[in-house]
Amino acid sequence: MFAEKTDSILELKNSSITELNSLAEEMRELIIKKVNVTGGHMGPNLGFIEPTIALHYVFNSPVDKFIFDVSHQCYAHKIITGRKEGFTNPELYEKYTGYTAPEESEHDLFKVGHTSTSVSLATGVAKARDLKGENYNVVAIIGDGSLSGGEALEGLDNASALGSNIIIVVNDNKMSIAENHGGLYGNLAELRNTNGKAECNFFKSLGFDYYYVENGNNIDDLIETFKSVKDINHPVIVHLHTLKGKGLDVAEQNKEAFHWIMPGTLDKKDNETSVITENYTSLTKDFLCDKVKEDRTTCVINAGTPGVFGFDKNYRDLLGKNYVDVGIAEEHAVAFSSAMAKQGAKPVFCVMSSFIQRTYDQMSQDLCLNNSPITMLVYWGGLSNADATHLCSFDIPLISNIPNMVYLAPTTKEEYLAMLEYAHNQNEHPIAIRVPNGELVSTGQKDTTDYSKLNKFEIKEQGETVALIGEGSFYYLAQTVKNELKEKFGINATLINPKFLTGIDEELLENLKQNHKLTVTLEDGMLDGGFGEKITRFYGNSEMKVLNFGGKKEFTDRMPVNELYERYRLTKEQITEDITKILNK
Amino acid sequence: MFAEKTDSILELKNSSITELNSLAEEMRELIIKKVNVTGGHMGPNLGFIEPTIALHYVFNSPVDKFIFDVSHQCYAHKIITGRKEGFTNPELYEKYTGYTAPEESEHDLFKVGHTSTSVSLATGVAKARDLKGENYNVVAIIGDGSLSGGEALEGLDNASALGSNIIIVVNDNKMSIAENHGGLYGNLAELRNTNGKAECNFFKSLGFDYYYVENGNNIDDLIETFKSVKDINHPVIVHLHTLKGKGLDVAEQNKEAFHWIMPGTLDKKDNETSVITENYTSLTKDFLCDKVKEDRTTCVINAGTPGVFGFDKNYRDLLGKNYVDVGIAEEHAVAFSSAMAKQGAKPVFCVMSSFIQRTYDQMSQDLCLNNSPITMLVYWGGLSNADATHLCSFDIPLISNIPNMVYLAPTTKEEYLAMLEYAHNQNEHPIAIRVPNGELVSTGQKDTTDYSKLNKFEIKEQGETVALIGEGSFYYLAQTVKNELKEKFGINATLINPKFLTGIDEELLENLKQNHKLTVTLEDGMLDGGFGEKITRFYGNSEMKVLNFGGKKEFTDRMPVNELYERYRLTKEQITEDITKILNK
Repeated sequence: MFAEKTDSILELKNSSITELNSLAEEMRELIIKKVNVTGGHMGPNLGFIEPTIALHYVFNSPVDKFIFDVSHQCYAHKIITGRKEGFTNPELYEKYTGYTAPEESEHDLFKVGHTSTSVSLATGVAKARDLKGENYNVVAIIGDGSLSGGEALEGLDNASALGSNIIIVVNDNKMSIAENHGGLYGNLAELRNTNGKAECNFFKSLGFDYYYVENGNNIDDLIETFKSVKDINHPVIVHLHTLKGKGLDVAEQNKEAFHWIMPGTLDKKDNETSVITENYTSLTKDFLCDKVKEDRTTCVINAGTPGVFGFDKNYRDLLGKNYVDVGIAEEHAVAFSSAMAKQGAKPVFCVMSSFIQRTYDQMSQDLCLNNSPITMLVYWGGLSNADATHLCSFDIPLISNIPNMVYLAPTTKEEYLAMLEYAHNQNEHPIAIRVPNGELVSTGQKDTTDYSKLNKFEIKEQGETVALIGEGSFYYLAQTVKNELKEKFGINATLINPKFLTGIDEELLENLKQNHKLTVTLEDGMLDGGFGEKITRFYGNSEMKVLNFGGKKEFTDRMPVNELYERYRLTKEQITEDITKILNK
Repeated sequence: MFAEKTDSILELKNSSITELNSLAEEMRELIIKKVNVTGGHMGPNLGFIEPTIALHYVFNSPVDKFIFDVSHQCYAHKIITGRKEGFTNPELYEKYTGYTAPEESEHDLFKVGHTSTSVSLATGVAKARDLKGENYNVVAIIGDGSLSGGEALEGLDNASALGSNIIIVVNDNKMSIAENHGGLYGNLAELRNTNGKAECNFFKSLGFDYYYVENGNNIDDLIETFKSVKDINHPVIVHLHTLKGKGLDVAEQNKEAFHWIMPGTLDKKDNETSVITENYTSLTKDFLCDKVKEDRTTCVINAGTPGVFGFDKNYRDLLGKNYVDVGIAEEHAVAFSSAMAKQGAKPVFCVMSSFIQRTYDQMSQDLCLNNSPITMLVYWGGLSNADATHLCSFDIPLISNIPNMVYLAPTTKEEYLAMLEYAHNQNEHPIAIRVPNGELVSTGQKDTTDYSKLNKFEIKEQGETVALIGEGSFYYLAQTVKNELKEKFGINATLINPKFLTGIDEELLENLKQNHKLTVTLEDGMLDGGFGEKITRFYGNSEMKVLNFGGKKEFTDRMPVNELYERYRLTKEQITEDITKILNK
């Protein structure tokens, strides 16, 4: 391994092939050890060690530019570019983010964590280079799984028309997170089967020059090919056939499970079975499974991230043709779901809050303008310690301001099930449900609410002076604030579960004016454009004071949730303090 | 032409080829006459008459489903499916929308006006059919220009994997709105040049069966090919080579200018030159042209709609390599611009408000998370009589709630120029400017505001009791309200131009509390999630009353602006009434 404090890239460039191969093995060990401790992307990183070494050997970063797609394959690059300590020193394992990050190194150009962006970004870098009259190589690195995303395809179409140097390395490990879906992947297979020689070639059809490397984990072959495309004067694809999880048997054999692992996965004994407890994920799976059995037109859809929803291979097989993974293609997923619903089928599109952002126009035009009765389940919505690239705090402003959409926020198992039933059975609206991301709460009492009566909030406990309206998981925060107000100040606050995020209950809000001075909204997400502001607007012309609690408009990065809460004044003590300050004015 | 009150489709199916050809000519005359009176999509509709006749001849709509992309080619379909009167009777010319509309006919499946959606929608229809065990043909009709959009490409990748009947008719008239851009179009040309026989075939590479029709306006050939794919049991592309503007010489020769025309275009004499007056479009063009001359890294970018910005052929040639039309690919455009800016170039991305919706995640992740200093010019933002598919009232909520973004709203020529200069020269933020869409207003006084001091509102006229904050074009509405308040009620209101839509001027708002009881916000767009709510939230805990004026969260359809204003209480009389009601409480 590189000596401390040397220029690793220079050391690498002066190494023999034998030494590079040893280096690859050393890096592999480091990555396995580190990822097993911290959790992270195991398979994709293990498969891209040799290509990364060869890229740094042949090209001259940071003069030549490497742009990694989604950053699932950038660990070897991080080790080579001055961040080795994040892999050798367990105390520094968490120092560096799992994604490319310009603030960490001049070798990282962009902060990236969503897929399918690299080709477009690389095309922009190349265009800037050309306009400035500069001269360097621009290399995008994109996995086969990311190719199905609209932004990648738009990027390829434009990159090929650039007319100057751009090198797109396609890291084809025959997998997305799970298996690939879509016609494109047939062509990639044909190219692999013909050693890149198939006449009908997706990349060539888009106007690219094309190189194929069958042994995409062979440093010798890689160096030879990269040398032949270095300084090329036109757009070129270098298609590498690599092995996901390479060098870790269990990862090679369980490619999907080892795409991203939890800490300690390798230390688990085979006979260790985790205790299965009921949670919102298992509830959803059971519900969908029942619906598929009841109604053959039910269709469970996701866009390349089945693991987020616990849809493992067995579950997918169980759903059969009533399950569709469209690959990384959220835009398609929404339009596809909308059209199914219009024809009388029952689509349920499952999506992570951070990725719903990838399909705003389709929600607006394909879905809501056509008012198609789909069910959309939004997972992980809320403030969290996520990477800046994977924040889930924007879904309320994004979804709830689109006309015709109904966005529901359940607080208990029974509410969630009732909302699922309602959404699935109705034919009136596109309905999104913010799947709770906390511990399961069960009342044991069936929820018989008629959710077709839109925007009906529920007063859970009638009080006076202060009304607390807590959305979804923040309903429980409202509850603790209520207790705090009672215990510390003798204030008997009203507690309200709004359930609906797309509209307000004007009658209920109007009635609150009678014996309340202050309404407090609490939402688990960014305040700007969100739920609370709608309530504040309603009260703007009245004597009612309003306080909105939620997140600030900013990108946070791996900030512990308790720090976030402190920062946004979301602890029960801070909220209570702010409330009493108003009351005492 | 079809007799009144007969079943046109049946009549068509019983016609000879000679009769069908006459029918095509009759329809062509109707379309030319009607579009010349009302304005509309001339070229694409003229080029798709014969294919539409052949489609209805061979398939059985509405049992078989036709899904038109962007609806720029649906006029012949409308004539055939019971809406002939909208083309024969000048009094009913405006009765039907220019887009497919399910409320008009059971032959229209979706309300569509944004591009690149048809393949995904058709795939959803086909999947619903399969799950329900039904049996009919699903036909998507998509122009070559729409193929470059991410949603179309995601759709193609998934459609080809459907495993059952789906027929995608590619209407290749060798044009987008303007010329096509991107590597894909080289392959379409190669396919046309080889009568569809080129080995390397974009569609086949995606897994489709493929048919080519060289004479895409020949009814005989079309019928033969459609018959051979009818009831096919797998996904197929039918690639038609058609002529945009067919049958109207001036449209055939000026394909771009006749894509969409203004009313009366055909009646203009050659020597009639329109008087060129300065407006915000011409100002922008002049500014960009100067910047390109001054700085070779300036790059003007748009996504397939140069006409919206007045970027005609001459202008584009003038900008040369400093102009990039990425085709219909808004996602790519934003990422591309962001990367250029990161490398020190000066991208200016021009986009229509309605289409900025197509790239939310790229604004969030590629652009704002990376805080790249691009300039984004948003055209046509505001309430309007647009079709439901082209509303421009959502851009403030969409753009202004993304962290790091700066969204500016100029009210005069001088402010606009100062903001353009600032945006172009700074290196701190992604900056969007809401290009004014009204009459040009000039003060004659250079604006020397330092816009790098973010969120500084300007008090234009200091008054008391009521503060009027008018955004962009609604600044003038605020001005008329001020006058009304003065004249009718002797109230001397304060008039404020906020200029910034992404944040609030807390100091100024705080100061207003001293001698104002009511703050009124006016924004030219939807209220939900917008600018006014941020101000209301600020005042929530205070004695200040707030009224927010703007649009309601809904899709309106071709509603005259004065009706919209009445509906939303946006006339100066209504606003004044609401204000005085609060004051008199």
